[in-house]
Amino acid sequence: MASPSAAPLKPTSGRVKAARRLARRTSREELRLFLAEGGKALAEALLLDGCVVEVFATAAASEEYADLRRRVESLGLPWQLVTDEALVALAGAVTPQGVVAVCRHLDVPLTDVLGGSLLVICADVRDPGNAGTIIRTADAAGADAVVLAGHSVDAYNAKTVRATVGSLFHVPLAVEPDPAVAVRVAREAGYRVLAADGAGELDLFAAGDLLGGRVAWLFGNEAWGLPVELAELADHRVAIPIHGRAESLNLATAAAVCLYASAETTRRPR
Amino acid sequence: MASPSAAPLKPTSGRVKAARRLARRTSREELRLFLAEGGKALAEALLLDGCVVEVFATAAASEEYADLRRRVESLGLPWQLVTDEALVALAGAVTPQGVVAVCRHLDVPLTDVLGGSLLVICADVRDPGNAGTIIRTADAAGADAVVLAGHSVDAYNAKTVRATVGSLFHVPLAVEPDPAVAVRVAREAGYRVLAADGAGELDLFAAGDLLGGRVAWLFGNEAWGLPVELAELADHRVAIPIHGRAESLNLATAAAVCLYASAETTRRPR
Repeated sequence: MASPSAAPLKPTSGRVKAARRLARRTSREELRLFLAEGGKALAEALLLDGCVVEVFATAAASEEYADLRRRVESLGLPWQLVTDEALVALAGAVTPQGVVAVCRHLDVPLTDVLGGSLLVICADVRDPGNAGTIIRTADAAGADAVVLAGHSVDAYNAKTVRATVGSLFHVPLAVEPDPAVAVRVAREAGYRVLAADGAGELDLFAAGDLLGGRVAWLFGNEAWGLPVELAELADHRVAIPIHGRAESLNLATAAAVCLYASAETTRRPR
Repeated sequence: MASPSAAPLKPTSGRVKAARRLARRTSREELRLFLAEGGKALAEALLLDGCVVEVFATAAASEEYADLRRRVESLGLPWQLVTDEALVALAGAVTPQGVVAVCRHLDVPLTDVLGGSLLVICADVRDPGNAGTIIRTADAAGADAVVLAGHSVDAYNAKTVRATVGSLFHVPLAVEPDPAVAVRVAREAGYRVLAADGAGELDLFAAGDLLGGRVAWLFGNEAWGLPVELAELADHRVAIPIHGRAESLNLATAAAVCLYASAETTRRPR
């Protein structure tokens, strides 16, 4: 690996251009790398062995995050000074914090994330903000892992990473192209699979102990929900009651209500 | 009011330019008008007496929404044909549905929305998506009204309107510049005010009957939460427990968990 040069790199430098390619999903998947923007993301990434590959930072951010720089350099990793323009080109954020880390992909095989008591399976979740918010909520609710299944958005999309607010580095993640496989594998591992479905036969708040124990929640696409044939693979289809005139809930908010209902059912003293 | 002309109006037409001014908050507030994009929003707006002022639509959308057009014209309101370019200029959406309605502001005085059993007060909520999602969630949870207080985002911002997915036209809305006044007025009207506060003294899931009855939830800014002096005006400060390593929840997801906890406490059979 080349040693960091002293002069801040410009947007046209080869290293910056190479890192910028990670804005594209195909490049990310080919190299199994992604970009994480901001000091908080870098601090979280550094807690994971081998996650950070190199860091790009402006001179100002290098002072602001001097502690992080010391940790990066003590690991023998490059802390590369870049111009403000190069940082903006890398960050993909409207108001970047001045530091961008190149990180290794975090997802592990599906079979490695089984065994806990609360699993989250996203099937064809397409909006980066929703996916990131679900990962953040899964972390908050104490879920053991998140599975991005089917044609879900890439977890390493800049907007997804940002919406996780660091939780991408906390919660084990698996990717499974076929949502039906994710459901089958979870059921075989002893999870009761609950499909979040506005037309479900079970009212979330009447489901009682079914929500607790070893539970996997299955969430569908933000616009069209879960395909019937996928929802039918679950043990139960569970609806959040709509008391007013809204047609439905936003996906990430629905996920929060469901995940906390399960977390509290499992943790409630008996 | 001018009668609609037969030829589709271009982006440079005076009427289109006048309507486009409603993309600015100052113009919206001066005229007490806003733009609602899409067939669903128009259908909801038409259910409210006197809400719709005029409609701009492409030729294709005028065919697709022929029923809506008949209703608009039967009310004596203009259905104005516009070019695709003019519609895009008006819609403020990436993939507009071809129809934009000019609507009257919907907010009513704070004292007009009191008296129900579930009130939502947003203090300095700045993100349009968050505010819109909270309005949608309030609708779903059966809340009686939403108060946008302090320096909250304008409810009539195009992104907010879109994020409400029609609920802006369902839930009574009030605007109150001073969040402390909103809390005081709610308490005087008999609401138990619960401040959503990650550092709150009460665990949401241990709060029991305090969550039900006549309750007003107070939510703060997405980045810095509630100022201490405002949170202290509430009857209780309530925290959603964080079981994992997330620092906090996204504001709209936290609001969903809180509002449903109250809705279910109030509705639970005793």
